[in-house]
Amino acid sequence: MAETYDIIVIGSGPGGYVTAIRAAQLGFRTAIVEREHLGGICLNWGCIPTKALLRSAEIHHYMERAEDYGLSAGKPGFDIGKIVARSRGVSRQLNTGVGFLLKKNKVDVIWGEATLTRAAASGKPAAITVKPTQKKAMQPQPPEPKGVSGPGEYEAKHVILATGARPRVLPGQEPDGKLVWTYFEAMVPPVLPKSLLVIGSGAIGIEFASFYRAFGTEVTVVEVLPQILPVEDAEIAALARKRLEKRGIKFLTGAKVTGLDRRKDSVIATIDDGRTQQKIEVSRVLAAVGVVGNIENLGLEKLGVKTERGCVVTDGLGRTNVPGVYAIGDVAGPPMLAHKAEHEGVLCVEAIKGLPAHAMEKTRIPGCTYCDPQVASVGLTEAKAKEAGHDIRVGRFPFIGNGKAIALGEPEGLVKTIFEKSTGKLLGAHMVGAEVTELIHSFVVAMNLETTEEDLIASVFPHPTLSETIHESVLDAWGRAIHI
Amino acid sequence: MAETYDIIVIGSGPGGYVTAIRAAQLGFRTAIVEREHLGGICLNWGCIPTKALLRSAEIHHYMERAEDYGLSAGKPGFDIGKIVARSRGVSRQLNTGVGFLLKKNKVDVIWGEATLTRAAASGKPAAITVKPTQKKAMQPQPPEPKGVSGPGEYEAKHVILATGARPRVLPGQEPDGKLVWTYFEAMVPPVLPKSLLVIGSGAIGIEFASFYRAFGTEVTVVEVLPQILPVEDAEIAALARKRLEKRGIKFLTGAKVTGLDRRKDSVIATIDDGRTQQKIEVSRVLAAVGVVGNIENLGLEKLGVKTERGCVVTDGLGRTNVPGVYAIGDVAGPPMLAHKAEHEGVLCVEAIKGLPAHAMEKTRIPGCTYCDPQVASVGLTEAKAKEAGHDIRVGRFPFIGNGKAIALGEPEGLVKTIFEKSTGKLLGAHMVGAEVTELIHSFVVAMNLETTEEDLIASVFPHPTLSETIHESVLDAWGRAIHI
Repeated sequence: MAETYDIIVIGSGPGGYVTAIRAAQLGFRTAIVEREHLGGICLNWGCIPTKALLRSAEIHHYMERAEDYGLSAGKPGFDIGKIVARSRGVSRQLNTGVGFLLKKNKVDVIWGEATLTRAAASGKPAAITVKPTQKKAMQPQPPEPKGVSGPGEYEAKHVILATGARPRVLPGQEPDGKLVWTYFEAMVPPVLPKSLLVIGSGAIGIEFASFYRAFGTEVTVVEVLPQILPVEDAEIAALARKRLEKRGIKFLTGAKVTGLDRRKDSVIATIDDGRTQQKIEVSRVLAAVGVVGNIENLGLEKLGVKTERGCVVTDGLGRTNVPGVYAIGDVAGPPMLAHKAEHEGVLCVEAIKGLPAHAMEKTRIPGCTYCDPQVASVGLTEAKAKEAGHDIRVGRFPFIGNGKAIALGEPEGLVKTIFEKSTGKLLGAHMVGAEVTELIHSFVVAMNLETTEEDLIASVFPHPTLSETIHESVLDAWGRAIHI
Repeated sequence: MAETYDIIVIGSGPGGYVTAIRAAQLGFRTAIVEREHLGGICLNWGCIPTKALLRSAEIHHYMERAEDYGLSAGKPGFDIGKIVARSRGVSRQLNTGVGFLLKKNKVDVIWGEATLTRAAASGKPAAITVKPTQKKAMQPQPPEPKGVSGPGEYEAKHVILATGARPRVLPGQEPDGKLVWTYFEAMVPPVLPKSLLVIGSGAIGIEFASFYRAFGTEVTVVEVLPQILPVEDAEIAALARKRLEKRGIKFLTGAKVTGLDRRKDSVIATIDDGRTQQKIEVSRVLAAVGVVGNIENLGLEKLGVKTERGCVVTDGLGRTNVPGVYAIGDVAGPPMLAHKAEHEGVLCVEAIKGLPAHAMEKTRIPGCTYCDPQVASVGLTEAKAKEAGHDIRVGRFPFIGNGKAIALGEPEGLVKTIFEKSTGKLLGAHMVGAEVTELIHSFVVAMNLETTEEDLIASVFPHPTLSETIHESVLDAWGRAIHI
């Protein structure tokens, strides 16, 4: 007879494993199905290992600037193999950690690929079949965790899909594992390419552009839209572009890659900007044109689970149109961000438990890009706020007016805040500069507490910190900044 | 006839110059009196130049760890002269900046030492006499700004004392400029001392201990209380101590320096811990046993301005017992922090203007220590919360459970949160670890918005960031942390 659970989560990325742990905390007998490795893309091939790579780039950059700080050493060297090995080590440590957390919380791990075979109905639980994983997307693999269950039949009152997403592939830009990369290959380069063409200037594309450029690769980024980091505020994106260009990254915006001619150890790319075509030869190509939800082979069609634009349709608390079937995280639609997945999963199981739960307000979900300079934001951009018909006040404060930024040697940056004029409601916050990914959370907290400018102005930000730029930006929106 | 202003601010530290700029913004004809240099201690001899020194120490530390990140270079070297020169340059840049800001806001600068000679009464303004500065405390001096007024008689409807504080001197520990230092000398060492005795383990003492140790000085810190960083939560202070000891700093707590025998190029210090006496020979001594308000020679006695424990007594909006005389910042009492001074000054002139203004809630003023590891906090410690009779819940989350901390190579740290059990009110937050001085502000904002645990739990902290440790610590206080 099939093993029966209260909740089975399919996929152990940050959405899935957090959901499973929260479910276990709430007293549900819980299992999680994973086909490749605990922690999913984020932990093994996404957020985490890129942050490790970018940390090496950051330290390297400091070493290059040692003289500025009264320090000295030889010209800094690097070993791309060791940099990658450190990054893999970080992923492995966290991957192992997820295994411990699941075990500690008594979440059973089922190893393999799951398909829903029956929806829950008339008191009967849903059924899933787990088969051995057919095709693994990622190499190298971490070792399979010990003490896990394997393929077989399982039942659960509630099945939560947390299967995540994978790189979008455009025709002609299919990854080949050698010349044309996705983030998988870009994460583990055997050698540093002399030149790299990055297709797409979202967070993934820009982070890799920033990393490779730090170690000397000639990087060209092609973006089909007129602006890099297209979801960011135009002014912030323009500042980021200027800084990245100063570091030697070339940008071609409003341009498409119309052809990739793969040679022995290089690619000749044809780039069309609507007026002219140019061909450039590069060592490697990174296709970073977004991701698509993993909705295939889950049995969704058979059960009639509604999907739209490649994602499962939910009510914001994970509920699909089929009772007992839920979806959270990337597979449940944008924003496709780990922290959105985690919260959505927690809300989903809390709602199943019958606890009060509200769907997330999507304008309060922050986004971060960990390039140099860093970019972070939450809420509406200036353009979106105007589009939505808001009468707004905009505050701006540059890092050059901040004592800590000067002391750190990081005087370039901007904090932009957007308020509704009549009510003082904070609509959006947008930042570029040093450490802004660690600063944005106070705007998130403030928005969640329905802040107006008054509460932020009355808050005593510690001196000297970069966080004072937040205070000053708010002051500026109301015409009363001090240090500018 | 004496030049008459609406407002004269005495002292141009961060409290004074921010107050003067805000006064000018509000339409007051404003002047500021300064005896030595714009920006005061904070900008010239305090917060700012120490942050510059500590940044060099931070980068040096990264260079020492280069191999960990897959990087290489020779053994890192340093030039203490260049490190100090950079720090002075940072101060000079900001000092010049304050001059520009005052000019831009049409605040007149009066150069010299001010004494109140008459209080405002019966429609007559207060009078002050400005004399040439007699004795300058600090060397070297930045150049006198151009276009300033000089000694003479001035009148103002409102006089705001923002004269700050200076190092406390204990008998037998008088600074001599060579062997026994205050922060003035510690900021500009001509050479790196082989060994340093730091008397006092508050923020100033610990920051210098951290800086000197980073470059190889043998550092011993003596603290009369049983805990280093005495204002911090005991658990956080203990963790900071452990890390600092690991870096080679020696601590003697519950101990007093009872004698300093000054030799030619060294000092023999007698240290008494209540049980035994020991003598240690050190190259230099830094006396960092707190600061005292600058209340002398201001004419306060003559006017009958009430002082208490070396500070001017105010109502929290700067008002003293004498109409038309105000005091803000360090001279108006603890906490003696630049950000407290700035806010207090802004509130003071807003109240003068007749705008609604509330005195600051002192438990919402954060404190930061920029040693390695950093320490930051706001609100009640666990001990103080219990002392105050609160029934509390305490949350703890270690950096080792945070993906970004692992990726950065900074796995040591702790976020501790203290809530009132019955109401969920956030009473205090205490942090030790990488970048915590840039994280604490969200707790400040949250407290200011009267947060409970629910609002913080519902906030979506971006992944992967150190700021997620805040979320987890709050979750832990309610028994539902995920990553531990």
